[in-house]
Amino acid sequence: MIRHIVLFTWTDDATAERVEEVTAGLRKLQDVIPQLRSLTVGSDAGINQGNHDYAVVADFDDVDGYVVYRDHPDHQAVIARHIKPILASRAAVQLSL
Amino acid sequence: MIRHIVLFTWTDDATAERVEEVTAGLRKLQDVIPQLRSLTVGSDAGINQGNHDYAVVADFDDVDGYVVYRDHPDHQAVIARHIKPILASRAAVQLSL
Repeated sequence: MIRHIVLFTWTDDATAERVEEVTAGLRKLQDVIPQLRSLTVGSDAGINQGNHDYAVVADFDDVDGYVVYRDHPDHQAVIARHIKPILASRAAVQLSL
Repeated sequence: MIRHIVLFTWTDDATAERVEEVTAGLRKLQDVIPQLRSLTVGSDAGINQGNHDYAVVADFDDVDGYVVYRDHPDHQAVIARHIKPILASRAAVQLSL
């Protein structure tokens, strides 16, 4: 299994509405990318100071499935339309489990 | 449910042996912190450039369970003995699911 993990920080332009567009856009990918087996997304819960703002955890059967997701045009559209316009920084890891 | 996600980058001092000590230390916490319901840890799979080096995904029933883990002396000992000596940067999010 491949677990893909990404954490974002947002710019000051990241209104709640724009962040909700990120969430909705990512969740819709579950309908079009069958390789995406499990998806957990959302904003930081505000328990600790100094955190990143948003997390994505996505599970795939294998590397090929992850790469289909990574490069899928619908995913790239979410990144271009909703994520990049409010993105300040990004940290990512893929775990092979 | 609370999902706690942390990504690390390591310094040049992070040998494979020292990273394995991080993994072993974190996994042992499952035996002493019952609030820690699920733990996924490991090094980046090397699929993409520019990633962080290591990820921790830990699930808890609620915020109280997460805080027990966060502040547990055995966890703090792993951080002090194994993580901080090789830590370059840290990115974290807690998701409330």
